[in-house]
Amino acid sequence: MMKIRIAGLGLIGGSFLKASQRAGYDVKGYHHGEKPDLSDADIIIVAQPPSAIEPWIRENSPLFKKGAIVVDVCGVKSPLYEAFRLEGIKQDWVFVPGHPMAGKEIGGFDNSAADLFDGASMILTPYPYLGRMPLDELEKFFKSIGFSKIVFTDPAHHDEMIAFTSQLCHLISSAYIREELAKDSEGFTAGSFRDMARVGAPDPDVWTELFLLNRASLLPVLDRYIARLEEFRRAIDDNDAESLHAQLERGKSAKALIKHT
Amino acid sequence: MMKIRIAGLGLIGGSFLKASQRAGYDVKGYHHGEKPDLSDADIIIVAQPPSAIEPWIRENSPLFKKGAIVVDVCGVKSPLYEAFRLEGIKQDWVFVPGHPMAGKEIGGFDNSAADLFDGASMILTPYPYLGRMPLDELEKFFKSIGFSKIVFTDPAHHDEMIAFTSQLCHLISSAYIREELAKDSEGFTAGSFRDMARVGAPDPDVWTELFLLNRASLLPVLDRYIARLEEFRRAIDDNDAESLHAQLERGKSAKALIKHT
Repeated sequence: MMKIRIAGLGLIGGSFLKASQRAGYDVKGYHHGEKPDLSDADIIIVAQPPSAIEPWIRENSPLFKKGAIVVDVCGVKSPLYEAFRLEGIKQDWVFVPGHPMAGKEIGGFDNSAADLFDGASMILTPYPYLGRMPLDELEKFFKSIGFSKIVFTDPAHHDEMIAFTSQLCHLISSAYIREELAKDSEGFTAGSFRDMARVGAPDPDVWTELFLLNRASLLPVLDRYIARLEEFRRAIDDNDAESLHAQLERGKSAKALIKHT
Repeated sequence: MMKIRIAGLGLIGGSFLKASQRAGYDVKGYHHGEKPDLSDADIIIVAQPPSAIEPWIRENSPLFKKGAIVVDVCGVKSPLYEAFRLEGIKQDWVFVPGHPMAGKEIGGFDNSAADLFDGASMILTPYPYLGRMPLDELEKFFKSIGFSKIVFTDPAHHDEMIAFTSQLCHLISSAYIREELAKDSEGFTAGSFRDMARVGAPDPDVWTELFLLNRASLLPVLDRYIARLEEFRRAIDDNDAESLHAQLERGKSAKALIKHT
């Protein structure tokens, strides 16, 4: 039976712990800063804050056994991918950058859950030199704890997609909820407000890091988004029903192409 | 037993029909354009597209019985409020502008449901000259079909609040979903994307009308929102962690004040 060790027990690390327990693995979790026993770990999941992952791996890698597979969970992949690019061919353990596509609007171990990853995608951005075997093992493991889909891609594509599918949503929601009318809006809200407000309070420490780590991909996505809002603004300001209607039609056509919401 | 008649059987009208049936009322619904029998109606709900409501009421009001209460469901209240401001003191029926705070991302009778209004707010913007009796009757009726709260306010306040709590959300979502990366984002999405995309395809005919009817309230709300996004953009572009962190903290504080999401 594979031995799973998890470094960091916030929402994501805690959920990996509980999901692995549910699936019957030999699993142990360690809090950030706690001394881990990694001598027999087959899969090590590093669920630390973004800037803590690289130093944690460098500090603890002497303890990894031969053949150990190390996966992180950082929401931006290029920096860690570059940091360990040469590691895997020098060492006898492997690093596979990863990003579980699941979360909650409130963090911490108390909110972690065995079913957090049920039906979610696990994205992996492995090095091209890596053999198929560790990836097969990871795929088997992640599917056994609830993920429905393993996506293999390169870090640049991941980072561009995530800028749009996750980071932009968090910026939108945070900017939305700061509106002065929000605090007196009880009785005037329904589902669209609830959806829009949900991820409006991501952890400022973690997300400041994530947004700045992904600046290069995030800025053009954010610029295009603001430009589309400005286009709406102009049509409304000009009382231009034709333009406004055409923009809404374009949104409708775009949404019709998306089957995975 | 009160007789309820519903003019217009889309998502909202259909849901009023089914919710009233569930509550045991004598209820009849009429499609847009269908000839209604309103001679014994106690409460008439006009669930037509925005621009159809005023002409429908003017055309059919000769059929209203003495004491009939007419409620519309338009998402913007000032124009209809003004249009019928003098009506209620000249006629022996009353008009109460209304807005049920419930919806779905897909319209039409097929998507209507008896439980659509369960737990929702019903907003009413009655004329100050109106007596308490019709409002008590309406409150009793709306609560009996599922609404948990009746909010009485004036149309200007309603329209400003709804610009933020509903209309801005639909603009945000429509602009979001038009991003070119969206169509290839399968496998890269989780809850925040789902929330953000949900109301991205509102009916272009209806919502072009609603946005333009509410231009005066919507533009300042949209401008403040774009300004907050620009503030995020500047901090990210400048690699300014301090400013970005401070903005996320302001969002977090704002969200903590909101208990009704």
